[in-house]
Amino acid sequence: MAAAAPPPAPTPAPEPATSLPETTPLFTRIRLATPADVPHIHKLIHQMAVFERLTHLFSATESSLAATLFSPTAQPFHSFTLFLLEASPKPFAVSSVDSNPFFTPLTKYVNLSIPIEDPERETFKTTDDVTVVGFVLFFPNYSTFLGKPGFYVEDLFVRECYRRKGFGRMLLSAVAKQAVKMGYGRVEWVVLDWNVNAIKFYEEMGADLLNEWRICRLTGEALQAYGGAD
Amino acid sequence: MAAAAPPPAPTPAPEPATSLPETTPLFTRIRLATPADVPHIHKLIHQMAVFERLTHLFSATESSLAATLFSPTAQPFHSFTLFLLEASPKPFAVSSVDSNPFFTPLTKYVNLSIPIEDPERETFKTTDDVTVVGFVLFFPNYSTFLGKPGFYVEDLFVRECYRRKGFGRMLLSAVAKQAVKMGYGRVEWVVLDWNVNAIKFYEEMGADLLNEWRICRLTGEALQAYGGAD
Repeated sequence: MAAAAPPPAPTPAPEPATSLPETTPLFTRIRLATPADVPHIHKLIHQMAVFERLTHLFSATESSLAATLFSPTAQPFHSFTLFLLEASPKPFAVSSVDSNPFFTPLTKYVNLSIPIEDPERETFKTTDDVTVVGFVLFFPNYSTFLGKPGFYVEDLFVRECYRRKGFGRMLLSAVAKQAVKMGYGRVEWVVLDWNVNAIKFYEEMGADLLNEWRICRLTGEALQAYGGAD
Repeated sequence: MAAAAPPPAPTPAPEPATSLPETTPLFTRIRLATPADVPHIHKLIHQMAVFERLTHLFSATESSLAATLFSPTAQPFHSFTLFLLEASPKPFAVSSVDSNPFFTPLTKYVNLSIPIEDPERETFKTTDDVTVVGFVLFFPNYSTFLGKPGFYVEDLFVRECYRRKGFGRMLLSAVAKQAVKMGYGRVEWVVLDWNVNAIKFYEEMGADLLNEWRICRLTGEALQAYGGAD
């Protein structure tokens, strides 16, 4: 979908019952996705389609994603780019992702006030202790008025059991941080006008809503009709 | 501006008075812009800012445009891409632009029912008879649901004396045609919700309006604040 999925709503975590709260220490890591992540990415996008009740529009396959997201000539941040957020109960072992020439992973320790029950832990496991939590897909856009590029965030998605814990903010902040690093002028995305929780969250993150603009889309047969146009 | 400029409104040309209408034969050409076009591009973008009453947001310079639009590693259609529309009273002479490896120029003969008075002919001249009429700036975007790229049209602009003559449609059609050629799934752009003429024009071109979506923008100091975030 041409849209960032709704982020964690900014509601507080439920109060613990009587005993001391059980905490969940988590080590998190944001890194560039690789072709090896495509099966997980495909499942995450499908979950997003289910969440948005738009599975009838979902036609991506693992092979279409692999061919278009990881073109050999495309360079991260200058083309379609995907950050994957992973979590682990133990510190991340040193691995090849740490020496990626385009992006040094961002790691962070968080201590959640409630335990996480992950019914899909096996499905989204990358190594023994590491699980995929969510992703953000973005790519450069351009402002002629600024005379410089920005980033457009196409998708932001966090798996259900990890929502409302700050992970959406973590992913979006990583994109903003990268934009600043590259001297880019803007980060933009879209939100559904009825999604008041998401709008509130984005405004708290410092974003403005451009209420007057509407998206126009030429697709399907209407687009194909231009194939032979002169 | 993050937006396609309003296109020619689809109103009919005025009826000729009594004598036979004076016609204006024009040869048109759509080609990829080159770094040599930057002075013209800068002036066109400035005119667009004036038209949209947004000159206070205009900070692009010739050098910022040259550095960001024509990066040596960027390949047309896979990064920021600019089609320039030129017109001439004579057929275009064979030139180096005809052998561009990425795009063969689209030429078309049009016979307008009224003469064109161009007060800025000298300013926008590229060669003796050839004048820049307008431009379209676009770049790839990505649909995770389709699992394939599309094009996003950032700007569509036609100089005032050339408006309402089909040139906006010509530029947008060229982008759509290129999208089909590349097997891309969508062409998207934005329009102001009060610009009913533009909306009618886009719908006639086959586009759908996505009325529920709103653009979120993180820019300026709010964006810079993420530079040091962890």
